[in-house]
Amino acid sequence: MNLTNSDIQKIESLIADRKKSHVYYQEKSKVYNAFIDMENQAFSVGKLGKKYKEMIAIGISIYTNCEPCMEWHIKEALSSAALKAEIIEAIGVGMEMGGGAAVVSGRFAMKVLEYYMKDHKSK
Amino acid sequence: MNLTNSDIQKIESLIADRKKSHVYYQEKSKVYNAFIDMENQAFSVGKLGKKYKEMIAIGISIYTNCEPCMEWHIKEALSSAALKAEIIEAIGVGMEMGGGAAVVSGRFAMKVLEYYMKDHKSK
Amino acid sequence: MNLTNSDIQKIESLIADRKKSHVYYQEKSKVYNAFIDMENQAFSVGKLGKKYKEMIAIGISIYTNCEPCMEWHIKEALSSAALKAEIIEAIGVGMEMGGGAAVVSGRFAMKVLEYYMKDHKSK
Amino acid sequence: MNLTNSDIQKIESLIADRKKSHVYYQEKSKVYNAFIDMENQAFSVGKLGKKYKEMIAIGISIYTNCEPCMEWHIKEALSSAALKAEIIEAIGVGMEMGGGAAVVSGRFAMKVLEYYMKDHKSK
Amino acid sequence: MNLTNSDIQKIESLIADRKKSHVYYQEKSKVYNAFIDMENQAFSVGKLGKKYKEMIAIGISIYTNCEPCMEWHIKEALSSAALKAEIIEAIGVGMEMGGGAAVVSGRFAMKVLEYYMKDHKSK
Amino acid sequence: MNLTNSDIQKIESLIADRKKSHVYYQEKSKVYNAFIDMENQAFSVGKLGKKYKEMIAIGISIYTNCEPCMEWHIKEALSSAALKAEIIEAIGVGMEMGGGAAVVSGRFAMKVLEYYMKDHKSK
Repeated sequence: MNLTNSDIQKIESLIADRKKSHVYYQEKSKVYNAFIDMENQAFSVGKLGKKYKEMIAIGISIYTNCEPCMEWHIKEALSSAALKAEIIEAIGVGMEMGGGAAVVSGRFAMKVLEYYMKDHKSK
Repeated sequence: MNLTNSDIQKIESLIADRKKSHVYYQEKSKVYNAFIDMENQAFSVGKLGKKYKEMIAIGISIYTNCEPCMEWHIKEALSSAALKAEIIEAIGVGMEMGGGAAVVSGRFAMKVLEYYMKDHKSK
Repeated sequence: MNLTNSDIQKIESLIADRKKSHVYYQEKSKVYNAFIDMENQAFSVGKLGKKYKEMIAIGISIYTNCEPCMEWHIKEALSSAALKAEIIEAIGVGMEMGGGAAVVSGRFAMKVLEYYMKDHKSK
Repeated sequence: MNLTNSDIQKIESLIADRKKSHVYYQEKSKVYNAFIDMENQAFSVGKLGKKYKEMIAIGISIYTNCEPCMEWHIKEALSSAALKAEIIEAIGVGMEMGGGAAVVSGRFAMKVLEYYMKDHKSK
Repeated sequence: MNLTNSDIQKIESLIADRKKSHVYYQEKSKVYNAFIDMENQAFSVGKLGKKYKEMIAIGISIYTNCEPCMEWHIKEALSSAALKAEIIEAIGVGMEMGGGAAVVSGRFAMKVLEYYMKDHKSK
Repeated sequence: MNLTNSDIQKIESLIADRKKSHVYYQEKSKVYNAFIDMENQAFSVGKLGKKYKEMIAIGISIYTNCEPCMEWHIKEALSSAALKAEIIEAIGVGMEMGGGAAVVSGRFAMKVLEYYMKDHKSK
């Protein structure tokens, strides 16, 4: 599948927003900073490896149609050596749990997956 | 943690409902039967093992506070040799993604986990 | 399918709560009273008959797992001459849109449907 | 109401995404293929006509603010001879069930409805 | 409005579950402990007083039908000197944002409010 | 934080859509008109001031990731003399209740807040 320019623009603007809002709330919100600590606890290696934790997050992102969550957790899963086929199966679990509304979420997940399978891993 | 009688009753009535509604809709709804096939595809062994697929489903169940989903997927995870500590980490990912509302879901998940850690695996 | 005593108790306590809270909020909340007007507008006969509007509400109730909504809208659909088989198809659309989490909602819908198919229509 | 160019572009890019992702997941995901079968079962003619099933799906799409679902199910409803006024009433049921958040979903539904009322039915 | 014994039992079992699960996850989940810190940050006095923060949490609890959240945040609002009439208005905002599904959440909120208006504030 | 042109375009197209759909549904949907009355009841001054009611609506908008709701309620909060720091705390309560998915909603809220802090209050 080939991404259109507008697909790439959308993904890259989500990435830019993620970075800007991180700076913004880190300065202004103690709740946000506590959340970042919670996130670190949730995704650090434990009995489950980081890769499998990211798979859970991908499934939830599909279930709830959170596009910026897909962008982040698919990126993180690939950085943790997840395979494309594994990610598609995680998406499949989200689809099963969430039906038609979650199947629709798969449309953006597909684009993010193709985006990060190319040469964009470090963003 | 000890389960109260009313905790056990609630879990066992969810199990009974799951079985009754399976018979009911299998007879009456083609959509339901297609769903069962979708479920089988989602949770069969693929590139990801069944245990990890169940972990994703546990995370989604916590995120969306689906108690009967917790009952089923915690049972299935344990049958696929998941450890208690791994399940608690999967719950933790759901909590991170879903915040206070998901933390509250953890209350029922805890009971199901303790229930199936005892001697109820075959139900 | 036979309902257990505890199934019947649960349905009847939802009915009692519906009536009590109606009195409570009608006295105390202008927002609630405006909602009741909105409800009347939504479900009165228009280009679509009331039966079909209730079918939409049943589908949404399944999708979002709102048990008191299932109690009310299945009752109203039956009072508008909907057939059991039509209601099961409306439930099926909710299951398709909402996947596993919505399939689980079907467990309570089944009980409400059986309850009101018996001799409880006037409640 | 007149659609802006950017309204039309958004709708047409949802249509393109629907088609691309269909090909993508059909090749790669057994879960997706099982979902397509479930969809066929849910929307085929039964005791309820297809038009009324699409009305249920429109109501759910409004409730849950699924824009691609609105695009698809409004198109399908019109192809099944639903009237504009009937679709607006189905949207109204979704608004009643979902309040302000669902009223907001009506903004995109309005655009899709106007789009397909013009000369775009075959897309 | 008078609470039935079963209303009181339900509320008190939510309270018991809240306490038990707090101990359980505090021992076993670093994510949970980070969440507790996030909660403290969110509800401590800032530019907005604690009472108004609890009002926001009540509105969200109604919107998302989180019964244990209603139990906790209505209790906390009353402890922060919120008036019954203010809490009913916060519930009203939740109803406006969430429509029929949120109106239904008001049924349990009503019980919790009556429960804590009596002599149960310290639980 | 500086808004990009595309940030401003997005916000201004939400504003335009809000106005257009208001005209559209006001003419065509009795349900919509009843909703507008419900909205007026919910946000008029009562025991709680309008500012605090808007804070509740902001929290819910963050929780449920309703971008047009953020646009409207942040505007309304500022018109009711809410401070930027108060709005960020309301966002914080939404983040606490909704976790990672709600934290992501904060990205758009931040833009709306910066937009209306400038010279756009009358839109």
